[in-house]
Amino acid sequence: MSNTDGLTVPTYEHVVAAHERIKPYIHETPILTSTYLNGLTGAELFFKCENFQKAGAFKVRGASNAVLGLSADQEELGVATHSSGNHALSLSYAAGRRGVPCHVVMPRTAPEAKKDAVRGYGGLITECEPSTSSREAVFAALQQQTGANFVHPYNDPRVIAGQGTCSRELMSQVDGLDAVIAPIGGGGMVSGCCLTLSAIAPEVEIYAAEPEQADDAYRSLKAGHIIAEDAPQTVADGLKVPLKELTWHFVSNHVTDILTASEQEIVDAMKLTWQRMKIVMEPSCAVPLATILKNKHVFAGKRVGVIISGGNVDLAKLPWM
Amino acid sequence: MSNTDGLTVPTYEHVVAAHERIKPYIHETPILTSTYLNGLTGAELFFKCENFQKAGAFKVRGASNAVLGLSADQEELGVATHSSGNHALSLSYAAGRRGVPCHVVMPRTAPEAKKDAVRGYGGLITECEPSTSSREAVFAALQQQTGANFVHPYNDPRVIAGQGTCSRELMSQVDGLDAVIAPIGGGGMVSGCCLTLSAIAPEVEIYAAEPEQADDAYRSLKAGHIIAEDAPQTVADGLKVPLKELTWHFVSNHVTDILTASEQEIVDAMKLTWQRMKIVMEPSCAVPLATILKNKHVFAGKRVGVIISGGNVDLAKLPWM
Repeated sequence: MSNTDGLTVPTYEHVVAAHERIKPYIHETPILTSTYLNGLTGAELFFKCENFQKAGAFKVRGASNAVLGLSADQEELGVATHSSGNHALSLSYAAGRRGVPCHVVMPRTAPEAKKDAVRGYGGLITECEPSTSSREAVFAALQQQTGANFVHPYNDPRVIAGQGTCSRELMSQVDGLDAVIAPIGGGGMVSGCCLTLSAIAPEVEIYAAEPEQADDAYRSLKAGHIIAEDAPQTVADGLKVPLKELTWHFVSNHVTDILTASEQEIVDAMKLTWQRMKIVMEPSCAVPLATILKNKHVFAGKRVGVIISGGNVDLAKLPWM
Repeated sequence: MSNTDGLTVPTYEHVVAAHERIKPYIHETPILTSTYLNGLTGAELFFKCENFQKAGAFKVRGASNAVLGLSADQEELGVATHSSGNHALSLSYAAGRRGVPCHVVMPRTAPEAKKDAVRGYGGLITECEPSTSSREAVFAALQQQTGANFVHPYNDPRVIAGQGTCSRELMSQVDGLDAVIAPIGGGGMVSGCCLTLSAIAPEVEIYAAEPEQADDAYRSLKAGHIIAEDAPQTVADGLKVPLKELTWHFVSNHVTDILTASEQEIVDAMKLTWQRMKIVMEPSCAVPLATILKNKHVFAGKRVGVIISGGNVDLAKLPWM
């Protein structure tokens, strides 16, 4: 890891090492295309389906890299995290594969499907209020009590190196991409894209897509420093968390632009994807398509990789019902 | 085509010819697997995802084979059919690709999503009552009026040869299958499996899965002759139609067994697949998994190909809401 401004920044070598380490525990997820959506957008879209990933989301890449890299001493005390859902699920899955305890702090408002799945993988849940401040306070107490190794959902070099394996796979599956677009919450996936693409394909543009109602990353990029919201409200429940130092490092240095979409645009894009591509995916994953539909001039004629980040949605509470 | 008991029966050579003909117009659909569902069933399941097929269902294979084989004279008058949905959609798609008119009779109760999609592909809809008798009467009048070439949804050698390309692909994608299971309505897909597997892999068992509430194929197989119901009611709306002479020929000669599942078992299996495999599929496609879960002793330890036949579901009317 190189040290930049006091940060421990992972390099592309860490992505390659992470890929070797986690390969037996993850899927190489397929790429799907849709003639209909290409016609509608004027771009050539290649959907990287991390909704088909182990534990239902890309986050298993970073979580597995962190868990598999623990020392023998760390292993005994286990891991701990706070997460709006998929990181909790992924860390529980990864910890379960290695047989180490996994403590997770989750907002009490997180989808029941996600809580059930965390418990199904053996994760131990402590609930907090649905705000960043409450989450951090509850977590601090838990960590002090257990001594577990903190695996931050995104502001952790091990996690970012793991997420970087997704765009590494994508580049090996699709030739000649002009751009990649991914949803942005805390910025873990986008940072992984920045890390990998800046090393192996610096000509590829990197776009981040964010809900208008949780547009802290967009405002951060425009302002030139991190702006955090405490408790934004959006249907894209995976994208409510703010950037942190390490993800800000990657976003501020490598992201071409951050585009935003309204709640209705996100729900419409989600329904359109379910209808036309026949895949179950979370509202968060629809934000990239929503922003492409809204900014056709940016993507027209380009070959665009679109990261479908996860599929852990509560089927009893679909946003168009 | 060989002539058996007055029937024109397609052979495996027709499947190979159909495959060459339709390849530019269809997807080679992917195989998905689920560690969770393997654990739950004790079998090794390979899901052949025809929900990702062009026009959203396997039926585009048979429809394309029929349309692409029309003579110049037939082409001018176009094609016509009656269908509960996916065949109508597929024939409209295939006819649109060749630029010939496509007339379809659909029950007025068919999902709006399917009707909209037929119109979207340029198909011309005439509505009938939701019974086999009404459908056949309305269709006879339409055919007389237009002179269009009748492409039956399943009782047509061109269609069965086209459907046979699905199991041909499956066998090239997965080694050492012990069994294949597909939903059965009129029997087009199952007949295609029988045609292909009896020729290239006669050791593979062929199971058909049917709703208890529309179990006419099951009762036919037990009785040794076709038993037809006029208007069965089931959530698996693609499986309400009866066997006909040509599909009965294949089913009676090659199917190992027909297994049935209740409405609740079908809905539970559908929801389980959406949750765990993150794919949008129709209730009909859940019938095979429902019967596997109910008959674990039949499939335990076996490598089983499971045909996911289509994904054209009305997202505003999901059966667990």
